[in-house]
Amino acid sequence: MPRVAIIGLGLIGGSIGLALKRAKLADLEIVGHDAEYGVNRDARKRGAIDKEARHPAEAAEGAALIVIATPILQVKSAFEAIAPALAGGAVVTDTASTKRDVMSWAADCLPEDVSFIGGHPIAGKETSGINAAEASLFDGHPWAMIPALDATESAIRAAENFITAIGAVPTLIDAEEHDSYLAAVSHLPLVLSTALFSLASRSQAWPELAPFAGPGFRDTTRLASSNPSMSHDISLTNRENLLHWLDRYVEELASLRKMIESSDTQEELIERFASAQAARDAFMQAPPPKPGPERPSDPMSAGERMMSFMVGEYVVRRTKEVQATLEKRASGELDDRGKR
Amino acid sequence: MPRVAIIGLGLIGGSIGLALKRAKLADLEIVGHDAEYGVNRDARKRGAIDKEARHPAEAAEGAALIVIATPILQVKSAFEAIAPALAGGAVVTDTASTKRDVMSWAADCLPEDVSFIGGHPIAGKETSGINAAEASLFDGHPWAMIPALDATESAIRAAENFITAIGAVPTLIDAEEHDSYLAAVSHLPLVLSTALFSLASRSQAWPELAPFAGPGFRDTTRLASSNPSMSHDISLTNRENLLHWLDRYVEELASLRKMIESSDTQEELIERFASAQAARDAFMQAPPPKPGPERPSDPMSAGERMMSFMVGEYVVRRTKEVQATLEKRASGELDDRGKR
Repeated sequence: MPRVAIIGLGLIGGSIGLALKRAKLADLEIVGHDAEYGVNRDARKRGAIDKEARHPAEAAEGAALIVIATPILQVKSAFEAIAPALAGGAVVTDTASTKRDVMSWAADCLPEDVSFIGGHPIAGKETSGINAAEASLFDGHPWAMIPALDATESAIRAAENFITAIGAVPTLIDAEEHDSYLAAVSHLPLVLSTALFSLASRSQAWPELAPFAGPGFRDTTRLASSNPSMSHDISLTNRENLLHWLDRYVEELASLRKMIESSDTQEELIERFASAQAARDAFMQAPPPKPGPERPSDPMSAGERMMSFMVGEYVVRRTKEVQATLEKRASGELDDRGKR
Repeated sequence: MPRVAIIGLGLIGGSIGLALKRAKLADLEIVGHDAEYGVNRDARKRGAIDKEARHPAEAAEGAALIVIATPILQVKSAFEAIAPALAGGAVVTDTASTKRDVMSWAADCLPEDVSFIGGHPIAGKETSGINAAEASLFDGHPWAMIPALDATESAIRAAENFITAIGAVPTLIDAEEHDSYLAAVSHLPLVLSTALFSLASRSQAWPELAPFAGPGFRDTTRLASSNPSMSHDISLTNRENLLHWLDRYVEELASLRKMIESSDTQEELIERFASAQAARDAFMQAPPPKPGPERPSDPMSAGERMMSFMVGEYVVRRTKEVQATLEKRASGELDDRGKR
């Protein structure tokens, strides 16, 4: 039976499992592993996986698609752990929020006969863990897809179909571009939000301020509730881009500060507020199209296409195994029952 | 019939009208005025007011409670416009987001026999106008209350009952404190949010960035969609406090920037992210109590108490009017039917 392995069963890994289950693909087995005690069992109980694996390699063994959904800084060791167990032709993907380092770890650690397609769902929420997982988490959201240079065309299709099957919109992009764009619209907001909450809550006046912290403050600081390890891993693995945008942001604040300070620049200040409002309202009313790759329409669903790829790989792999067994037997290495 | 006047029928003024209607106070007449063409009629059609007034003085005439819900920079001229029409003993309040200037305008413009209680609902949304108004806008939110030094005790009770009747929680505070606290938790977030959206949307890469702007970016920039006049008025009337907090914020960012930049400070960085998360989660799970003034429990509802005050004022005023008429008549100024 074709198998998908999910390594890391937190909010993202768990939601991937639930979304795959929701797609009701016949004969798909989902094997999962999480390093944290008890999470495997919780994931199985929640119906996110069919089978618990004791370690990453056990989950990856015989899987046609392996999804690494661990924290960023654990992706490299996950690659190292699964590498020996990977079947030729398997597709490996991940969900980390930054991509440059992940792409280079994949190139270093994964075998050559495996295709790596970096992935990053542009979705999520500030809660974490398997209990926060939900099948609809990715619905309609872009999912960045960064194929390694040597990824096969069929592996790219498989990753694309996997992403579509769980409700997201595959969006092809280069790793450097990804990290630079996400620094602006995701990692910078995370730092700004954290700085605001830190500043207010560490102020001596916080007990007096807090009762007046309304919905605006709550929304602006929502990202300060993000998983701190994730925030840290992002800051570390996307440092240059983040610092670049942080510096530009401080310049922007300085320019606004000048306008607020002087009575001569009130008109410019109104203009700045008004153009930000107009631009944001336009953005919210007509969000930019998600640049998913264009495909000819196809009577098969994405899930079916994913399965057909996976079954195909499974058949190829089984054929190779059978071939190898027959060769070994012919050479006298094995007895008739396949034993040495 | 006791009358409430609402001057300014946008999101806040309109919602006050709807919330008063929802309180189903018998024999209350709500008269409204808005400077913008057509808004009076829309407010009446939406059921936020009973009667349209052609100008602020007409609305204020004979009203026991007058609520100024115009943009901040129009509050002073609203005070000037209603001053000649105010009945002695009337209570005037407002809803402006900054309070120091408003308190001094009230002291300058309103007659001495009228009580001013500054007000500020800590609620709202980024949409504006009468069509965005809703009766539940203030439910459970704090409503800052800043009585003028010479406000009477019964006027303070009336304002408090008015605030409670429309679902909010009256929160007594001093004007300077109000402006300083709100600078931190409301006006600073407004500027930060605007700066982020401005920076991203005016970047050359915006068409490429925008598709990756997910829920985190949307929430962090929500306040950039605020009414630009309101944002500007706030920046102007709370300039010193806002600049103070803006400077402290830039220092906070500089400290985070240092931690991100150096490999030696990664532990401090994790610690900063973790403590912000812990503090925000605690804040969200157990929001600070709203420091409403303690009152002995009372079998009358706040709305009934407000009405009883207003009816009381109405009776006093009518008595005075009757008295004056009788005196004038006795002195031969009027004929028996009250005409000159």
